[in-house]
Amino acid sequence: MADYQAPLSDYQFLLRDWLQIDEHYQRLGLGEFDFELATEVINQGGKFAAEEVAPLNRNGDEQGCTLKNGQVTTPEGFARVYASYIENGWNAMLGPAEFDGQDLPYSMAIPVHEMLNSANLSWRLTTMLTESAVLAVSRHATEPLKQQYLARLVSGEWTGTMNLTEPHAGTDLGLLSTRAEPNPDGSYAITGSKIFITGGDHDWTSNIIHMVLARLPDAPLGVKGISLFLVPKFLLNEQGEPDALNAVNVGSIEHKMGIKASPTCVMNYDGATGWLVGEPNQGLACMFTMMNDARFQVGLQGLGVAQAAYQGALTYARERLQSRSPQGIRQPECKADAILYQPDVARMLLTQKALTEGCRALAMVYAQQMDIEKYADGANSQQAHKVIEFLTPICKAFMTDMGLEVASLGVQIFGGHGYIREWGMEQLMRDVRIAQLYEGTNGIQAADLIGRKLIRDNGDRLAATEKLFSEIVDKIADEGNRSLAADVLREWQEASSLCLSMSAAESAGAACDYLAYSAYCLIGVLWFSMADCASGNGHEALRNGKRKTCAFYQQRILPRKEAHRRAMLAGCDSLLALSGSEFDYL
Amino acid sequence: MADYQAPLSDYQFLLRDWLQIDEHYQRLGLGEFDFELATEVINQGGKFAAEEVAPLNRNGDEQGCTLKNGQVTTPEGFARVYASYIENGWNAMLGPAEFDGQDLPYSMAIPVHEMLNSANLSWRLTTMLTESAVLAVSRHATEPLKQQYLARLVSGEWTGTMNLTEPHAGTDLGLLSTRAEPNPDGSYAITGSKIFITGGDHDWTSNIIHMVLARLPDAPLGVKGISLFLVPKFLLNEQGEPDALNAVNVGSIEHKMGIKASPTCVMNYDGATGWLVGEPNQGLACMFTMMNDARFQVGLQGLGVAQAAYQGALTYARERLQSRSPQGIRQPECKADAILYQPDVARMLLTQKALTEGCRALAMVYAQQMDIEKYADGANSQQAHKVIEFLTPICKAFMTDMGLEVASLGVQIFGGHGYIREWGMEQLMRDVRIAQLYEGTNGIQAADLIGRKLIRDNGDRLAATEKLFSEIVDKIADEGNRSLAADVLREWQEASSLCLSMSAAESAGAACDYLAYSAYCLIGVLWFSMADCASGNGHEALRNGKRKTCAFYQQRILPRKEAHRRAMLAGCDSLLALSGSEFDYL
Repeated sequence: MADYQAPLSDYQFLLRDWLQIDEHYQRLGLGEFDFELATEVINQGGKFAAEEVAPLNRNGDEQGCTLKNGQVTTPEGFARVYASYIENGWNAMLGPAEFDGQDLPYSMAIPVHEMLNSANLSWRLTTMLTESAVLAVSRHATEPLKQQYLARLVSGEWTGTMNLTEPHAGTDLGLLSTRAEPNPDGSYAITGSKIFITGGDHDWTSNIIHMVLARLPDAPLGVKGISLFLVPKFLLNEQGEPDALNAVNVGSIEHKMGIKASPTCVMNYDGATGWLVGEPNQGLACMFTMMNDARFQVGLQGLGVAQAAYQGALTYARERLQSRSPQGIRQPECKADAILYQPDVARMLLTQKALTEGCRALAMVYAQQMDIEKYADGANSQQAHKVIEFLTPICKAFMTDMGLEVASLGVQIFGGHGYIREWGMEQLMRDVRIAQLYEGTNGIQAADLIGRKLIRDNGDRLAATEKLFSEIVDKIADEGNRSLAADVLREWQEASSLCLSMSAAESAGAACDYLAYSAYCLIGVLWFSMADCASGNGHEALRNGKRKTCAFYQQRILPRKEAHRRAMLAGCDSLLALSGSEFDYL
Repeated sequence: MADYQAPLSDYQFLLRDWLQIDEHYQRLGLGEFDFELATEVINQGGKFAAEEVAPLNRNGDEQGCTLKNGQVTTPEGFARVYASYIENGWNAMLGPAEFDGQDLPYSMAIPVHEMLNSANLSWRLTTMLTESAVLAVSRHATEPLKQQYLARLVSGEWTGTMNLTEPHAGTDLGLLSTRAEPNPDGSYAITGSKIFITGGDHDWTSNIIHMVLARLPDAPLGVKGISLFLVPKFLLNEQGEPDALNAVNVGSIEHKMGIKASPTCVMNYDGATGWLVGEPNQGLACMFTMMNDARFQVGLQGLGVAQAAYQGALTYARERLQSRSPQGIRQPECKADAILYQPDVARMLLTQKALTEGCRALAMVYAQQMDIEKYADGANSQQAHKVIEFLTPICKAFMTDMGLEVASLGVQIFGGHGYIREWGMEQLMRDVRIAQLYEGTNGIQAADLIGRKLIRDNGDRLAATEKLFSEIVDKIADEGNRSLAADVLREWQEASSLCLSMSAAESAGAACDYLAYSAYCLIGVLWFSMADCASGNGHEALRNGKRKTCAFYQQRILPRKEAHRRAMLAGCDSLLALSGSEFDYL
């Protein structure tokens, strides 16, 4: 596979021309930020991703992680590049300024996150969860805990983890049974087993800070009896330095389909010392601070892998000579034409491109809303918050579903070579497959969207999202495109309204199709908007590419919404009809 | 993952009730065959697959193949089970009687093939290609070659391989450059390198018979200058026994995404002795005898893996307790309900079931047509031949695409555990991914369908296929279902007619969507037919299951045809519009 190249031109277009980021920062009173600085951050981030992180990706997959004497070793070079990452301040991009973070707008940091995911998904995971831990600690922890831990999580001197899942409690966190017994000194003794802990141990840092869900004595049953604890791998001494090993150890590491260079650990807590974060029995709400951030970030993983697969396949399709194009000979000097000139290969490449750039546009709309939520005043911030809540499950699920589809198309464009490890495409497909599963399966995202985000608040978040996209439609200058975009948005709004009155079982049965339907519609709107924006001056290839890819999306991708619309409105009778051996006739 | 169980009840239903196989055999004058014998073959085959072949699957993936001193070693147990396989006559099911084959109808053997694919795809591949080699040798080789090689390929004492691909010549066989120089004794010296050779070497048999495409001196350029040669690993002595090693060796074995227990070899021919099979320069036509057989068999791989993924996921969904069903508590004695009761999990399971059983129905219609082609008199045989030609690319591409989708759903239903190797689901996904690539990528299948099978003969094969499915529709007793099925068939026929007048570029751009569209429509017809057939007496769970799954297919799967129909009729302008850096804005 060709070397990774960060999609800098696309980000320049999105930030400067499409989102008009200078005006955005000015509106938010962020005078110190502008397009120029954003470009600098993104270019440097792309350089780091391409030159430092990406070269470790193939070997990381082959070498994997090992566990020996309770200590995880990550593949060659991983720790070294992590040291360079934190030294160059990349870990601190979003951290709060009072704890030495750079407090950058999301719209500057998120492009870099995409690029890290493209370069090396395994490597990125641990840094991503550290950022989530920073959020949870800064929003919910006591001041002494913040003083002890936050600056070093922000810098990346220490990393963070998320400990939710237990063997019998994955989706259903209400079943979790890890216990937290109060110690006389105000700390707690944590006992229990957690599985699927990304970065549960590694050889990068002098400490690892575990964010752990557990039950206090006499806590109510179910999710209302869960509290969040901070449990360091090494307890701090009086100088605040890592000292005695806490009573937490790695039971084993998982052997997985992909992300083999990321240690996925079984963590055993055996009376480990931890400190309460947030109020007792409010752990799930605190953890959701981490999870919502992580869910969007997992969506970005889908995007990042999609971009890597697209550019790998594009390079191959330009170089691989097989057969002649049905439109006539394109490369008479060669024995055959590049497969790029085969309409079906072009179809696959354009599917990759339309989905990848469409997801990127959605991610950047989301990033802009995160900026607004954080920096704008009350009403605007609240409105943005609603949009974010609505879009989070869509970003997580759709962008990871598309990550798999685009990666699989990458394998397909390579033909038989796509299946061979040395070419790198199959690794992308294996790696990205996890993203549909963790941080809540994509089915859980869909249930969250239709249940909590749509029906339970009676369409309030829907209205906020519809308003935002209406504004995007209204700005489309070309009348034809504006009308097409408005039609899509109206159809989506009407179909969403139909979902509002569904029963619990109906909505659960419609959930996944509603999520996909919404994503195809909303990204359709964004494509019309980007194509319109690209009609002006500037980078000619980019402008043509955007307009032509919009036409492709409209003709070849958008029709998928119809299949999802029909499925989601078909009721749930056929889903619930079968029982017992009617499934398998035994 | 739960142990594999062969879908015996479904096959009984399909053979006895749906295809009415006794009458079918009688019509063809095959008085020695009946449903009872078919059941015996299928039950025994299922037993062999489940008890002998399946237990080797996980270890085979972990252990893989090794190449040492030019000799491939397959995983533990593989050679032993192969010996048992040929000893029990399974390899000879379809072989010609004059060479000690059992000459069974396809409708008896194909169910067993599906089961072998479910049990262990890697293990099955080599035996599958041996069957294809039997076909090529028995139809095209000279009598002396047949006498020397055929009986031992039929029995499986020796295995066969297919050598087409070269590094620069995959899809475009016209580019291949392996040479065949005539020797004085009438044999040829074969020189060149072939890649992706399944079972190119192994430790199962005393000889391996390579079917190799190469060019004679002064052969025309392109595909019209390709001839087929039989090249044994060991040359035979005067007694017909393997003796001197031929000048062929394994350069390396590939490291792959899946089917790791199947040796995929680079084969180097260095003046190896071979014999012409078929006429000079007619090699591609001879190889197509193998390839058409192999293409359908690869479709069966998709089906087999789908079945394994479905039953694995079903077992898990019945056992895994998480959360409560939105329709109310289903297992009050437990802390949570089985996830089977979640509508979205039911949706995934039913998608698996509807696609898997739909593909199986299509495969058995195909098998029945193969019986008719082989045993019926002129006109009926020719008609069946046309149907087979039309359906071959559909079976290969659609059944493997569905294999991946169903396997990926299997991973999804397992949640995070689906990603962990020990649970077995991720292996199914990795293994089946190859099936969309080899024996002609699925894009090539689609081009074959719309170009060669639909447009080039002006709809003749389309008409034959339409006639067969019309007869299936006409037999549906229930008026409502018959009318629905007729509508689907009519819509398909009309859309197919629109494709008939497409230009080369248009049809190439529409190909994949036309194939998927056709498959969803035709399998829709088969579901209505099966549901109707299941309305009678017999196995109650099966009858209910079929009728309810038909309803699910109609409401939730069939709408996909709409997305494909719109895409395929959208023209190819948007596919061919981009050029150069418009793809990537560099």
